[in-house]
Amino acid sequence: MTSPTRREHDLLGDLDVPAGAYWGVHTARARANFPITGTTIGTYPHLVNALSAVKEAAALANLELGLLDAERAQAIAAACQEIRTGALHDQFVVDVIQGGAGTSTNMNANEVIANRALELLGHDKGSYDRLHPNEHVNLSQSTNDAYPTAVNIATIIAVGALADAMRVLEDAFAAKAEEFAGILKMGRTQLQDAVPMTVGQEFRTYAVMLGEDRLRLQEAVTLLHEINLGATAIGTGLNAPAGYAEIARRHLAEITGLPLVTAPDLIEATQDCGAFVHLSGVLKRVAVKVSKTCNDLRLLSSGPRAGLGEINLPPMQAGSSIMPGKVNPVIPEVVNQVAFEVIGNDVTVTMAAEAGQLQLNAFEPVILHSLVASITHLAAACRVLAERCVRGITVNGELTRAQVERSIGLVTALNPEIGYVAATEIARDALSSGRGVAELILERGLVSPERLAHLLRPEQLAHPASTPGAAELVASDGDGS
Amino acid sequence: MTSPTRREHDLLGDLDVPAGAYWGVHTARARANFPITGTTIGTYPHLVNALSAVKEAAALANLELGLLDAERAQAIAAACQEIRTGALHDQFVVDVIQGGAGTSTNMNANEVIANRALELLGHDKGSYDRLHPNEHVNLSQSTNDAYPTAVNIATIIAVGALADAMRVLEDAFAAKAEEFAGILKMGRTQLQDAVPMTVGQEFRTYAVMLGEDRLRLQEAVTLLHEINLGATAIGTGLNAPAGYAEIARRHLAEITGLPLVTAPDLIEATQDCGAFVHLSGVLKRVAVKVSKTCNDLRLLSSGPRAGLGEINLPPMQAGSSIMPGKVNPVIPEVVNQVAFEVIGNDVTVTMAAEAGQLQLNAFEPVILHSLVASITHLAAACRVLAERCVRGITVNGELTRAQVERSIGLVTALNPEIGYVAATEIARDALSSGRGVAELILERGLVSPERLAHLLRPEQLAHPASTPGAAELVASDGDGS
Amino acid sequence: MTSPTRREHDLLGDLDVPAGAYWGVHTARARANFPITGTTIGTYPHLVNALSAVKEAAALANLELGLLDAERAQAIAAACQEIRTGALHDQFVVDVIQGGAGTSTNMNANEVIANRALELLGHDKGSYDRLHPNEHVNLSQSTNDAYPTAVNIATIIAVGALADAMRVLEDAFAAKAEEFAGILKMGRTQLQDAVPMTVGQEFRTYAVMLGEDRLRLQEAVTLLHEINLGATAIGTGLNAPAGYAEIARRHLAEITGLPLVTAPDLIEATQDCGAFVHLSGVLKRVAVKVSKTCNDLRLLSSGPRAGLGEINLPPMQAGSSIMPGKVNPVIPEVVNQVAFEVIGNDVTVTMAAEAGQLQLNAFEPVILHSLVASITHLAAACRVLAERCVRGITVNGELTRAQVERSIGLVTALNPEIGYVAATEIARDALSSGRGVAELILERGLVSPERLAHLLRPEQLAHPASTPGAAELVASDGDGS
Amino acid sequence: MTSPTRREHDLLGDLDVPAGAYWGVHTARARANFPITGTTIGTYPHLVNALSAVKEAAALANLELGLLDAERAQAIAAACQEIRTGALHDQFVVDVIQGGAGTSTNMNANEVIANRALELLGHDKGSYDRLHPNEHVNLSQSTNDAYPTAVNIATIIAVGALADAMRVLEDAFAAKAEEFAGILKMGRTQLQDAVPMTVGQEFRTYAVMLGEDRLRLQEAVTLLHEINLGATAIGTGLNAPAGYAEIARRHLAEITGLPLVTAPDLIEATQDCGAFVHLSGVLKRVAVKVSKTCNDLRLLSSGPRAGLGEINLPPMQAGSSIMPGKVNPVIPEVVNQVAFEVIGNDVTVTMAAEAGQLQLNAFEPVILHSLVASITHLAAACRVLAERCVRGITVNGELTRAQVERSIGLVTALNPEIGYVAATEIARDALSSGRGVAELILERGLVSPERLAHLLRPEQLAHPASTPGAAELVASDGDGS
Repeated sequence: MTSPTRREHDLLGDLDVPAGAYWGVHTARARANFPITGTTIGTYPHLVNALSAVKEAAALANLELGLLDAERAQAIAAACQEIRTGALHDQFVVDVIQGGAGTSTNMNANEVIANRALELLGHDKGSYDRLHPNEHVNLSQSTNDAYPTAVNIATIIAVGALADAMRVLEDAFAAKAEEFAGILKMGRTQLQDAVPMTVGQEFRTYAVMLGEDRLRLQEAVTLLHEINLGATAIGTGLNAPAGYAEIARRHLAEITGLPLVTAPDLIEATQDCGAFVHLSGVLKRVAVKVSKTCNDLRLLSSGPRAGLGEINLPPMQAGSSIMPGKVNPVIPEVVNQVAFEVIGNDVTVTMAAEAGQLQLNAFEPVILHSLVASITHLAAACRVLAERCVRGITVNGELTRAQVERSIGLVTALNPEIGYVAATEIARDALSSGRGVAELILERGLVSPERLAHLLRPEQLAHPASTPGAAELVASDGDGS
Repeated sequence: MTSPTRREHDLLGDLDVPAGAYWGVHTARARANFPITGTTIGTYPHLVNALSAVKEAAALANLELGLLDAERAQAIAAACQEIRTGALHDQFVVDVIQGGAGTSTNMNANEVIANRALELLGHDKGSYDRLHPNEHVNLSQSTNDAYPTAVNIATIIAVGALADAMRVLEDAFAAKAEEFAGILKMGRTQLQDAVPMTVGQEFRTYAVMLGEDRLRLQEAVTLLHEINLGATAIGTGLNAPAGYAEIARRHLAEITGLPLVTAPDLIEATQDCGAFVHLSGVLKRVAVKVSKTCNDLRLLSSGPRAGLGEINLPPMQAGSSIMPGKVNPVIPEVVNQVAFEVIGNDVTVTMAAEAGQLQLNAFEPVILHSLVASITHLAAACRVLAERCVRGITVNGELTRAQVERSIGLVTALNPEIGYVAATEIARDALSSGRGVAELILERGLVSPERLAHLLRPEQLAHPASTPGAAELVASDGDGS
Repeated sequence: MTSPTRREHDLLGDLDVPAGAYWGVHTARARANFPITGTTIGTYPHLVNALSAVKEAAALANLELGLLDAERAQAIAAACQEIRTGALHDQFVVDVIQGGAGTSTNMNANEVIANRALELLGHDKGSYDRLHPNEHVNLSQSTNDAYPTAVNIATIIAVGALADAMRVLEDAFAAKAEEFAGILKMGRTQLQDAVPMTVGQEFRTYAVMLGEDRLRLQEAVTLLHEINLGATAIGTGLNAPAGYAEIARRHLAEITGLPLVTAPDLIEATQDCGAFVHLSGVLKRVAVKVSKTCNDLRLLSSGPRAGLGEINLPPMQAGSSIMPGKVNPVIPEVVNQVAFEVIGNDVTVTMAAEAGQLQLNAFEPVILHSLVASITHLAAACRVLAERCVRGITVNGELTRAQVERSIGLVTALNPEIGYVAATEIARDALSSGRGVAELILERGLVSPERLAHLLRPEQLAHPASTPGAAELVASDGDGS
Repeated sequence: MTSPTRREHDLLGDLDVPAGAYWGVHTARARANFPITGTTIGTYPHLVNALSAVKEAAALANLELGLLDAERAQAIAAACQEIRTGALHDQFVVDVIQGGAGTSTNMNANEVIANRALELLGHDKGSYDRLHPNEHVNLSQSTNDAYPTAVNIATIIAVGALADAMRVLEDAFAAKAEEFAGILKMGRTQLQDAVPMTVGQEFRTYAVMLGEDRLRLQEAVTLLHEINLGATAIGTGLNAPAGYAEIARRHLAEITGLPLVTAPDLIEATQDCGAFVHLSGVLKRVAVKVSKTCNDLRLLSSGPRAGLGEINLPPMQAGSSIMPGKVNPVIPEVVNQVAFEVIGNDVTVTMAAEAGQLQLNAFEPVILHSLVASITHLAAACRVLAERCVRGITVNGELTRAQVERSIGLVTALNPEIGYVAATEIARDALSSGRGVAELILERGLVSPERLAHLLRPEQLAHPASTPGAAELVASDGDGS
């Protein structure tokens, strides 16, 4: 016994599709053509919702311009609104990596919306003579403007969620910066002991970096508010009536609540992937910084007995199937891996963008695929890092302070008093003898004991005059945990 | 009403897991820690099966060495075999991108196998005092040898499927090379008309490239047959008894049917991701070539009326939601995108490999994730390209032959007769006047008509003496479609 | 006979350097340590000049703060000014790729400036007891603030030159856009004939893209105006007196004429390479666009007889050592290659930035190396493309117009009249029969001859209502050459 | 007063070149067209020599086939031989990054060889009627076979030098592995203390990795021995007489001493960059490993007082312009940077290879440029690392042994005695109390003192049975310095 079907027709001939499917012949062809990843566009809710917003805006514009009657326009709009409640996402079944510059995604949307609108109007699915996927749902549009506009909107929303997650992480680091403000430690350059600082200063850095990156992300997203709706096939606007672009943009801005603007040169906008390359570059920047931060966290928490051991990450799971009691920095590790993925995705986006030809870039689907992975995985990584790692970090303040006291880098603070050349002598002797810098200085009578004590005050070392957070040193000097 | 649970315990304390779950506390922690991609390792059947093979081999080795009693060993082996029939894959629920160097994947396997073995022995899930995930299933192993060994095996099998798909594509091109052997066309260098060749020669090139790449892939996969089972935590084999590595390898080779060998230096093998970097580099090579081939196919089939129009790709779907009758090269386009993805994944693999530290690379999960995507998507792409594009390609032989006849590049064939300098004059005149090369040569009396006809014979132009396929020119000169 | 030398001394002991060298022992060690590329920092004039500006600003600040006497400060300043006239660049001899986070570059500068200042004061080179590279020239500085500040300044100036070159290219495209405004051609999507446009519209796109990219570049460069001078070793400002950062910044802004600002968090600024990663990402974006543009130029000029042949690039050199008369698109080709280099460099910058640890990124030298290559090669490429290619491009307007007339894409313009379904029928018949779209439409009586003529007016096809440049269609319709 | 010139002529017209120049009009055009990097091909001695070998082989083959008279052939051969002594390299003046698929490099060689041969025959430079760059020097060749063949040969030789340098580094690590064979230390996974090993085992790993990579490099280079000489323009061998390919190959093999073979399919070989992509992938693999190794060296030598401090790198230069006595790991740092450059270059090579179209890849110059940088910089880096770092490394053996003794990882060795669960309890108590693992075990009576002493013998811990190098533990236990 076979499932019931309905017969549809396209350029290539007839094809039967499942009677219950909201998608039709074009979607069926695409499913057969692109069995690549097994991941459907329906798993990208932002995209599906954005497409439905574009289709609704187009229908309202067409209605306003007298190209579409009220009955059809309202049915299309209703179907689109339904989709944005989360309905019918399982009907968006084409593979995310697809040929055709997004045509299959666009046609999948046209077909689902048409069939749902037909139902709302009391007709059977497939009665396209009454309401047609191309002639009515896609009216005044092309894949080449509808799809990129939807991708822009979906990306704007996804990036918003990423920025929120970054903010959560930034706040977590900032809270720790305050908590650890009074704890002295050795700063390191090139992994070698350098000069003293506070753990608070170190953690503030991570917060500051994230804040800067969020600003860059917002700038990058601003560019995505420029849409090419109304461009139709290549940007000349063929088939879209005068005024359509502006009316459709106005409706779309209302539906999405986003301050969208129409690109000043639609031909350029239709072929240009610059905004995606730019965004991907900024995501890579975020990945680089977050990865560096996680490298630091893993390094500072190395041990427990043969490592730096400055900080403790909260244990999240047993670390080894063979080494009892071992706890590993699994959260920073997973974040590192997401960063590596984002950096690789940037190369994919770059190649796809470079491969555009003449009036269109046919490779936007893989750009979308890569950007969605980068954005959503980074957002998840930031939240996990904040919630399952940073918030639980403690400091071994006695150890870090002791390291400052026996460090050779202390001698740097005496450069202005005794000069670089004499200080180098002291440093060399300290290193070869294993003795302390202060001891050697006093022994040689280079500085008086009182002066030395003054120069080596903690607040002096972490530099009260010009660096943030140093003032807090006075108040606290204990273990940050 | 809540679902029934059972209580488990680890380093961090107690945790309730669903009573029906075959996985336990370690898996539960990992699920909470790594909510990154939403893709579970259970969707990687090769990996799950390979892990079960490793666990079975270890149990048999432990049995043979007297470390495990027959009852437990047989129950473990039975559970593993069951998994390889496809059962219980839905119990492998940790995210593919995870911290901890694969520990969570390994523990997920240990727990599922232990609980299934317990059931087979007539005990309840969770009765670990009778059969324990770590003490029995993981006996003589560490994540750091069990997991990479499983990844190697899973990769070998996946690459085998890729090689098969590449062979299908190679055969499709080779068949077309034969079909088009007699059709003359202009070869092009730097997109400029160069000298004549046959369409068969052009298509044979694509087949030859794939054949070479398959050889490289086989070489790369050979390296993966070297496993580090028996290395345990860092390669010193701590906790694995003398002889274990060899016995376990023997069992694993039997179970998988693969000629596995133990790495000569287990410490090196445990930290080294070189074989994965190498494989990823070869996958990138394949991607580069396949992408170049698809670029050619799209270019040669450009048109229908304002393009090169030399070949016709079979239409696979309507190409445009707005331009009636348009058919696009959607299959090559999707293959290009897979290639871009593979090239990006190679950067991810590179970064993850470079980030390894000291005795272990903790980032193997993202390497696995990237390699699996590259391998499986490339395999799908090759099959789709063969089946939905190459096999249906036809040639517009009249057009390609006409282009040869009015080409300026013909003059190159006369270099040996009239010299480069004189030939350059002819070429310049032909270009500026729009006239034919042969006509100009005869007009100037540079070569006799008979000699010219001889020199410009098709079989002469595509050079019978030294290039493959040229002999076939004699037999055929029609349209290849 | 050996060359005369002078003996210098450092932490590692004594070393003889050439008596005539302005550089000293630290530079000598570095030359021996880094024999990598053979390219010296002296070949980076922007960097050498920027370093001298930093050193002069520091000396003036130290003078103002009473840390340095007027005689020494003025001698240092005079030496620095001399360097910025182009003198002594051959004394900057350390390799551009070097370990040590730029310390060798900084010390090379300190030594050259000290020795030149000593000469100006009437002393022998090497009399460091009178004026010392570290104690006087480097006073209140560390490599970790002096070097990155100089790199920022050098990069700002280099990017300025790139922006100028991009503007030259943009203007060249814009001039061609005007020249070709009246020439109709087929637009193409996915390399398949789409709908009509003008060649002017096509070329304007290239100009618009470059204009957008210049804006992004300016935004990226703005970030580089934030300097960390005064941070010293790790950003705590140890050894730099209160007020130094601001005074030094003020002098540096005056010397360079740049609106420099001090970073709000010097610890963050000292370790963060975000601005370089960002800039590199934008350079990559520029490269992607320019490469795509060159791909288009090569494609559109393919031929002369078996290609698209829409445009002609000016011949710049004989194209082949064997094929007489062949002319190749060598200028776009060299630009493509620069783009590939820039994209690769971005990965290098990314990896170097990610590898930073704790309070410093030690890998800034390779970041500098990569950025300088990307910026200067891109600038050269843009100028060459403008001057040796774009300005000489001509169009084969008769051919492009004829292609529009016999195109199937014309039918798209009739969608609003006859609908997508009927239009698809026409398109299919046109393709299979080889007949014209207009002919078929009239034959079937779908549209009246008058209406059809109206719909297919050139100005209508390239869409007068909403796209730029279309108005110009009325005026001109000839060959653009 | 102007310099004397001679007038030459090409497709584009007349041009004056310096009278003393061996290069001619084609080179002059190329210099003007490609002012990109300022680096000339003359700085690539392997390439210039390889080109001269190809030209000599071609001349000898042409002589043998009766196409060239003995006088001209011998003059050409003599000029080529002279070039390979190092003469005339300054006459190879075209930029390394150039359009035209290497035509300018090939023509530069043709012109220099022709003019030098003319001189040897007693004629003036420029008397091309007697011996012509194209008609005689380039006879039976095209850029498209002569240039790639030369690039292959140059690359083979350069890689040989890299393999030698890698061998030097491998030997340095192997010597240290022996020297440190008896020194116990904590192995680390995920930067957390794991289980004991020896420093010798750790260093042997670095040697083993390099050995494996050398094998892969040799495999990759084998592919480059396949040349396409005789292919001429597109691989059909047009203009090359029957037998030419084999005779030229034989001469070239004799001249170079390399076992060269002619590619089985010359059309494929002429367009395929697979061997370069492959080689670049292997270079990237080497870079990844060497970078990881340097990361380890920097980490293990971190300190001197707040780091891991296990090993000491020999001081090579003062590390800081501000921090007296600071010594940094500058040699590993420069090697890391070279690795980042190589990884970026691989992306450039990948993009250039992917951009090939139809019968040729026009972007081989940038591939050459990237490969030469990667190979020569890596070779320099390996030598510097061996000679200026590895050979001088010492170990702080007392510290590393003490860390083993107080490690928690020791408990892993007791898994087989007390089980994973009990061992986990011990580990947790040791960690929270700060007490030793052995102490806690004895206190609880889990193992007898004698048995415990046996289990914790150093040779037992580093596992004598199955891992290399462990046997040496018995002999030595001191400081490795």
